[in-house]
Amino acid sequence: MEIRSSYSSLATTLRSRRQRLAQKITFPVILWSGSPHPRNFPANTFPFRASSHFLYFAGLPLENAAIFLDGERLELFIDEAAAESALWHGETPKREEIAEIIGADAAFPLSELPTRATGAATIALPNPTTYQEQTQILNRAVAPSHTPEGIDRDLAQAIASVRFCHDAGAISELRQAAAVTIEAHKAGMAAAKTAQREAGVRGAMEEVIIAHNLTCAYPSIVTVHGEVLHNGQYHHPLQPGDLLLADVGAETAMGWAADVTRTFPTTGEFSSTQRDVYDLVLAAHDACIDKIHPNVEYRDLHLLAAEVIAQGLVDLGILRGQAADLVATDAHALFFPHGIGHLLGLDVHDMEDLGDLAGYQEGRERSDRFGLGFLRLDRPLQEGMLVTIEPGFYQVPAILADPELRSKYQHVVNWDKLAQFSDVRGIRIEDDVLVTATGGEVLTAGLPTDAEAIEELVKSGGKY
Amino acid sequence: MEIRSSYSSLATTLRSRRQRLAQKITFPVILWSGSPHPRNFPANTFPFRASSHFLYFAGLPLENAAIFLDGERLELFIDEAAAESALWHGETPKREEIAEIIGADAAFPLSELPTRATGAATIALPNPTTYQEQTQILNRAVAPSHTPEGIDRDLAQAIASVRFCHDAGAISELRQAAAVTIEAHKAGMAAAKTAQREAGVRGAMEEVIIAHNLTCAYPSIVTVHGEVLHNGQYHHPLQPGDLLLADVGAETAMGWAADVTRTFPTTGEFSSTQRDVYDLVLAAHDACIDKIHPNVEYRDLHLLAAEVIAQGLVDLGILRGQAADLVATDAHALFFPHGIGHLLGLDVHDMEDLGDLAGYQEGRERSDRFGLGFLRLDRPLQEGMLVTIEPGFYQVPAILADPELRSKYQHVVNWDKLAQFSDVRGIRIEDDVLVTATGGEVLTAGLPTDAEAIEELVKSGGKY
Repeated sequence: MEIRSSYSSLATTLRSRRQRLAQKITFPVILWSGSPHPRNFPANTFPFRASSHFLYFAGLPLENAAIFLDGERLELFIDEAAAESALWHGETPKREEIAEIIGADAAFPLSELPTRATGAATIALPNPTTYQEQTQILNRAVAPSHTPEGIDRDLAQAIASVRFCHDAGAISELRQAAAVTIEAHKAGMAAAKTAQREAGVRGAMEEVIIAHNLTCAYPSIVTVHGEVLHNGQYHHPLQPGDLLLADVGAETAMGWAADVTRTFPTTGEFSSTQRDVYDLVLAAHDACIDKIHPNVEYRDLHLLAAEVIAQGLVDLGILRGQAADLVATDAHALFFPHGIGHLLGLDVHDMEDLGDLAGYQEGRERSDRFGLGFLRLDRPLQEGMLVTIEPGFYQVPAILADPELRSKYQHVVNWDKLAQFSDVRGIRIEDDVLVTATGGEVLTAGLPTDAEAIEELVKSGGKY
Repeated sequence: MEIRSSYSSLATTLRSRRQRLAQKITFPVILWSGSPHPRNFPANTFPFRASSHFLYFAGLPLENAAIFLDGERLELFIDEAAAESALWHGETPKREEIAEIIGADAAFPLSELPTRATGAATIALPNPTTYQEQTQILNRAVAPSHTPEGIDRDLAQAIASVRFCHDAGAISELRQAAAVTIEAHKAGMAAAKTAQREAGVRGAMEEVIIAHNLTCAYPSIVTVHGEVLHNGQYHHPLQPGDLLLADVGAETAMGWAADVTRTFPTTGEFSSTQRDVYDLVLAAHDACIDKIHPNVEYRDLHLLAAEVIAQGLVDLGILRGQAADLVATDAHALFFPHGIGHLLGLDVHDMEDLGDLAGYQEGRERSDRFGLGFLRLDRPLQEGMLVTIEPGFYQVPAILADPELRSKYQHVVNWDKLAQFSDVRGIRIEDDVLVTATGGEVLTAGLPTDAEAIEELVKSGGKY
């Protein structure tokens, strides 16, 4: 385990998190870290990723561990490594050393954990092995984390309210994730001129993340088919005229994420149609970021982006009508079918394991409107929240070829005009914005968004 | 899904594999592919890796699928993607298209699978979700794969006997994995002069694998502390005088692995002590590869390596006595505590999910000797087997500081002499060798092993 010196105040940070939680609940809590998942056979595992709720209160990515929280008290439950493991894995920190680093009041082997089970709340893990352990040790049913019940639901709400607004320890980590992600994107742009396939650009980007000893926070999207929103393919050749959409983010050793998208011409020159659409997506991006401020409704940012995009598409002759009417009838969603963004923290969609409990203010629920249903966050912004702002324009075949949608929007879309934009399959511009007392701070501002600067980075071809 | 054109004969290859299996069993078989593991929340998963047994007979890494084998008959069970998934994931191949590619006789939704359950054998998956599905659909207990019972055990033995010797389709994939792995290692050597930390070299190596659109077959070991055999840390700085041990292998899209280790001086110059030990490990490596031939006992290769290492250490003055006696008393294992290698195929330790059922010939079992207990393969070699040859020398604190071992070997080791080799913490040289009719073909021969060539690659610093 590598303990970063910049996190020497870990115990203090964790104590403050426990204090904030303790003000909101009246019951003890057990949080499990989880265990590594086997890849193709049990001894060959995926890299271990601890549960985010555990990480938030325990700080370190400990395998097969649990913490017990009772008021401000912290107890660590973990087994020491077996003596023979030193041959294969070297010396590992002792239980008492870990306990001291995280500021635990006491530390015990896992076999002692059942003594803390009575009346304790928890958050279910998606790891079936750990989930089984949770129900066995608590000796009761535990509902999945997206539908928590009873004290587990109370706990989920309390944890969400604590995790919404990031403390200094978290922000330091989030800045580190953002800084490495910026470097990765610059490397990707510089690699595009010589890479033959999407995979080549992905390799250049992920190399930067690996070389900084970080991991990817989520499966990278590096694609010339940005119209497939969660594209997981990397085999397409890069051809002149292609736009490459790269949605790649780093995660720190302690689990804090960045989430950034840029879209750029693989040759370093936008076509005029690409440039027109790029600039309108950027206008939506900038307009939303300008409006970020505590108490602003995130949903209103989404609608603002929709309106800017609708107006831009009217100006380009692709849509017909008034922007406000187009948004009211969801016509923008033909080309911008997802939400303007989401919470960002330990998870790239922070606390999405809790369903919409974190993303949606109590009493609100997902709209069934075509243009709002994919909005992941519907709350007033608060100081300390980190959100993504990620407007986009896509020509998704599943939408534009859908007979029902095509018929509904037959006269709103100038289909002939749209056909002239066939070289714009998918554009997204995404940054990570921290809500401050006076507005928004773009943690990823070191990565340019304007078209000329992007073109320069691509043309630099490795010399960034 | 990317279907590689070089694998256009997939259906033919799979039919031949079914034929070979059918000759060994009298019952039908259901093999599950498994499902992606959540990383930190359900929608953010690790890359999907299908079960190796499924891949061997189904060819493609299909998520949430199963195949039914009955004699030469192949049936595919998989659900079509939901219509709304096209927005996020694009168009995916239809069930019937997949069935045609793999040469299935019929294809059905998963809900039909229980109709094939009666009397079918299977191999349990380590994925708890799939494991639960297996017991539910078969409606019986299914023992874990390392302790299979009844027809499941008969199936495991039959599959192992088919998977031991690789067919042309497999060898083509294994060559591809080896070729990319060679390139990755060259990139790592070239990066060592400028990298500041282990992570920098790892990044350069994994970039090559990612850029070829392949994955890592196992967690990379890239460390200046090679004495920790399965070192998973990458944060140590590279300092003059360090040896870097890199154990990194690529895996093809269809799941076939390479497994290669090189050890090199980060500055491009071995010290004289490092060079002495490197050359003796290389002598053991070469001696074993020279002896590879059908019907040779793999255990004898292990003992040959032990003897070459023991003799070399006597020549260097580190051990005292006759090599044969030193091996008989396990003194070699003070410095070479693991086995000479293992089977390689779809799994990096091929079929290790079956415990020692594949690795150990029926009637043989693991030795409890210090110098033999970690041997993973104890069978006569057969044409078509792919094995690793990976001798090493390590100064493992957990061994050399162990009071019992230190006392037992007090007079066999020249501890003062050993102290002069303190800059040799861990060296391993590992190649992948295909057993042919006339000997062994080193699939990874394109990557040099001799010390001068290694030094040259490091000194080239990016110009390889």
